[in-house]
Amino acid sequence: MKNVKPGDRVAIEPGVPCRHCNYCRSGSYNLCPDTVFAATPPHNGTLSKYYKTAADYCYPLPDHLSLEDGALCEPVAVAVQILKVGDVRPGHVVVVFGCGPIGLLVQQTAKAYAASRVIGIDISQKRLDMASKVLKCADGVFLPPSPATNEPDAQAEWCASIAEDIKQKFSLGEGPDVVIDASGAATSIQIGVNLCKKGGRYVQAGMGKENITFPITTVCIRDLTIRGSIRYTSGVYPMAVELVASGKVTPSKLITHRYKFEEAETAFEVVKKGGEDVLKVLIAGVE
Amino acid sequence: MKNVKPGDRVAIEPGVPCRHCNYCRSGSYNLCPDTVFAATPPHNGTLSKYYKTAADYCYPLPDHLSLEDGALCEPVAVAVQILKVGDVRPGHVVVVFGCGPIGLLVQQTAKAYAASRVIGIDISQKRLDMASKVLKCADGVFLPPSPATNEPDAQAEWCASIAEDIKQKFSLGEGPDVVIDASGAATSIQIGVNLCKKGGRYVQAGMGKENITFPITTVCIRDLTIRGSIRYTSGVYPMAVELVASGKVTPSKLITHRYKFEEAETAFEVVKKGGEDVLKVLIAGVE
Amino acid sequence: MKNVKPGDRVAIEPGVPCRHCNYCRSGSYNLCPDTVFAATPPHNGTLSKYYKTAADYCYPLPDHLSLEDGALCEPVAVAVQILKVGDVRPGHVVVVFGCGPIGLLVQQTAKAYAASRVIGIDISQKRLDMASKVLKCADGVFLPPSPATNEPDAQAEWCASIAEDIKQKFSLGEGPDVVIDASGAATSIQIGVNLCKKGGRYVQAGMGKENITFPITTVCIRDLTIRGSIRYTSGVYPMAVELVASGKVTPSKLITHRYKFEEAETAFEVVKKGGEDVLKVLIAGVE
Amino acid sequence: MKNVKPGDRVAIEPGVPCRHCNYCRSGSYNLCPDTVFAATPPHNGTLSKYYKTAADYCYPLPDHLSLEDGALCEPVAVAVQILKVGDVRPGHVVVVFGCGPIGLLVQQTAKAYAASRVIGIDISQKRLDMASKVLKCADGVFLPPSPATNEPDAQAEWCASIAEDIKQKFSLGEGPDVVIDASGAATSIQIGVNLCKKGGRYVQAGMGKENITFPITTVCIRDLTIRGSIRYTSGVYPMAVELVASGKVTPSKLITHRYKFEEAETAFEVVKKGGEDVLKVLIAGVE
Repeated sequence: MKNVKPGDRVAIEPGVPCRHCNYCRSGSYNLCPDTVFAATPPHNGTLSKYYKTAADYCYPLPDHLSLEDGALCEPVAVAVQILKVGDVRPGHVVVVFGCGPIGLLVQQTAKAYAASRVIGIDISQKRLDMASKVLKCADGVFLPPSPATNEPDAQAEWCASIAEDIKQKFSLGEGPDVVIDASGAATSIQIGVNLCKKGGRYVQAGMGKENITFPITTVCIRDLTIRGSIRYTSGVYPMAVELVASGKVTPSKLITHRYKFEEAETAFEVVKKGGEDVLKVLIAGVE
Repeated sequence: MKNVKPGDRVAIEPGVPCRHCNYCRSGSYNLCPDTVFAATPPHNGTLSKYYKTAADYCYPLPDHLSLEDGALCEPVAVAVQILKVGDVRPGHVVVVFGCGPIGLLVQQTAKAYAASRVIGIDISQKRLDMASKVLKCADGVFLPPSPATNEPDAQAEWCASIAEDIKQKFSLGEGPDVVIDASGAATSIQIGVNLCKKGGRYVQAGMGKENITFPITTVCIRDLTIRGSIRYTSGVYPMAVELVASGKVTPSKLITHRYKFEEAETAFEVVKKGGEDVLKVLIAGVE
Repeated sequence: MKNVKPGDRVAIEPGVPCRHCNYCRSGSYNLCPDTVFAATPPHNGTLSKYYKTAADYCYPLPDHLSLEDGALCEPVAVAVQILKVGDVRPGHVVVVFGCGPIGLLVQQTAKAYAASRVIGIDISQKRLDMASKVLKCADGVFLPPSPATNEPDAQAEWCASIAEDIKQKFSLGEGPDVVIDASGAATSIQIGVNLCKKGGRYVQAGMGKENITFPITTVCIRDLTIRGSIRYTSGVYPMAVELVASGKVTPSKLITHRYKFEEAETAFEVVKKGGEDVLKVLIAGVE
Repeated sequence: MKNVKPGDRVAIEPGVPCRHCNYCRSGSYNLCPDTVFAATPPHNGTLSKYYKTAADYCYPLPDHLSLEDGALCEPVAVAVQILKVGDVRPGHVVVVFGCGPIGLLVQQTAKAYAASRVIGIDISQKRLDMASKVLKCADGVFLPPSPATNEPDAQAEWCASIAEDIKQKFSLGEGPDVVIDASGAATSIQIGVNLCKKGGRYVQAGMGKENITFPITTVCIRDLTIRGSIRYTSGVYPMAVELVASGKVTPSKLITHRYKFEEAETAFEVVKKGGEDVLKVLIAGVE
């Protein structure tokens, strides 16, 4: 145990992998099938006074960070992994579907990474305002209209036309370098893949329906790269702590509700119910 | 003009890009929107006595290769590009859907690249025999049953079960490193994505319906990379010529029909009609 | 000509490659042997009233940039290429040897790219002050002592000890992720390679003596990557213009001397004479 | 323990890393500072009747392989790692300095990976014959003359001229794609770096003097990548076992001496004494 000592305040990476399988040995520990992941059955979560975990999956917090900041390193780490998978580079134009917590943190992180322009898309104007006015991480936002039809082929055509509208509205030329879906919505995915510039990258981070209608021929003839992002890999948590510590990413601004430990059940109800006013809900530990 | 001289027998790369756009300048000339591509409207093809093209898109043939071999460097180049996009490496297990000309050449090339095992899949036993018995490029072949249903969700489930069957039959463990679809069939794509090992690569090379039902959540949680392959990039044609010259890849074995220049129309009819007995159809030039 | 129109104010990339060789076709046009590079014999430079060049190697300047800014996009582009070669990523610790114009711009660009920490090293305190106090691009600076000896092996040992001192002073742990030499000095190179963390990257950007004493066994057993950086590749100039336009990189602060067109010879004398007070010397065109 | 069961005959990867440090977690376990590496002080080697090690660092041998083959998977794994670091791809031209066991296995593996041409270089004709006539892994071999001088700058110039000679002799054009040094000799390194094509890769695998004279400006202006290779990373040992099992790489042909367990000391003396007739020396275990 070299990186932490008793009494340290730490951010906890919630999954500890087996360290022995080929995924672990090759640096893809996010894929380890034997990971002990907090709150993923059969493993309990961290809602307890003490939680035992591996030292190397704990990251000391700088003194000026609160435990709330520490807890919120988790969604930031999710965003950092998504940008890693998306290979977002300085100068890139990045479009993000979904302005929930992950989508917003992806946008903030992309700006911190010197993305040239970041566009946020959501069906809630309130959430778009979070992106453009509160966090000021989006250089532009877009509220797509409701789909005109549910018939798969017609809807696909409609999605392609919305992609064109977005390119026009924001003068995206050939299209963005990277499109990230943090919504999981079937139409977002269709629009997003159509939006990508030729040779560009699309990252699926949001989870919705298992199977959707998908423009596979577009992927082929436009030489796209479609990637999935899941959990975190090496270096991601330290980067998340650093982004929060430097103030470049501010997940605490996403906290909409706070509950005491005794009110945990209510907290879960609020999250389950959801709605555009519910972003991050915190259950306070004993400080 | 440094690479060819008058009288050289050459393989011709059919597309010459603009050399000025960002795609051309960054090495992705396959994406250049202003490419002059033979037989892609408004450009004529090469069915003429003389054909004028850029010298650097011509590749001299070694003396022991015939002009037929030279003509067949084109589909080999398609296969080489697909393996480049698939990042097929020595030791990889590769599954290829479709045993038409491209699928077969992909399999031969994968073996030449020291792939550990290559599995060919097709709904024609005759074509599977080409893979396993004639070209001997497949270490195993699989003839999938007909789908039990056309209902999207049920068919998706069926596809996932076929993927499991394939893993079992060939003891693929976590699944193949790379899956390549050279069929364009909707069910092949569904089976193929489900088949990929976690963190693996899937390449869409075949073209069928524009929109299909697609297991996007699987892509996300299994950290897959889905790529499209289109045309050729730098270094691909020289590799194709070399593979044919060394005898490691033998496209001439795919020739099922030969026609004289005057019979060109018949040749096109044969290709258009298709069928499992039609692989490569050649129209002979004047030697 | 799609990207510029008559009357546009532009930054000019000084080299136009042949567009036909394998380097050009694969995106490495910086290596094209037939590049027409301004002021590289036998080609004249741009010291003339009119200069004819390829449109796609001209980059329009936003209205708020001056022609001086435009001229200074060149050294910024050199820095952008160096960071590209160094694969500098958000969160990286970067050490830069040399605080001349290129070294300083590399440091500014690294900060713009969300490098975690940037350390500047030079033998001139004045130049270190530029890094830490004027441009504020260095989180720390270091002035190495004079080498105790010129005997190759003893000097190599001394360099290794200085590398240790730097690690200690800045708490660099295993060492920086990326070391960039923009000095060309033999001792900087020795120190720099010894400084790199295991598996890290070292970029040679400065040019000094052709042959130097080099710790090759360290490269081997520490699994280092040593790269050279030369000229610019696709996407680099647009990124440079954007960095200057956004104010993240401020090359105009490096201007120490300005001369009229008629005084060009004096300008060259000043540059040739050099010294720690000479950074960028501009010859004004006719506006 | 999923991959082996009691009684399995296995190849043993000699180093087991800590599994907890950043190197281990990111897939670079070859750099773990806490690796227990057989026969690297303070750890004992495997010269004992029983050896206890981690199951996941044992690789079952196919039935048709002998224990000798299993023991010789180690140098093959070294070669596989070198080619991984060198990013050797199908169609590459590869030049290997040094035709000792590692150099020869690198050449055999490069051919198995569909390298277009492999050139072996050594100062022993006998070893060159091993490459070209016994293992038949080299398409060409070269015996460099003795350096005309020891004066560093003059020798550097001489090395550059030998590099030109090699390019001429084998019609290498711009130079090989990848140069691998498995000799550690100072002149080989100088020649090798000069030989690389622009944008090419050079891998330092052999270990000789810590510091040598090195053409650093050539690295810079020719945009070279210099890499070090050390030990093995994930996937390398399985590939080595497969290459031996398939007969593509035949390390048993390198065995020049065999000793019984009781004669171990003699075996070490023979290796220490070396000479061109000593390649691989085996100490037989109890079968």
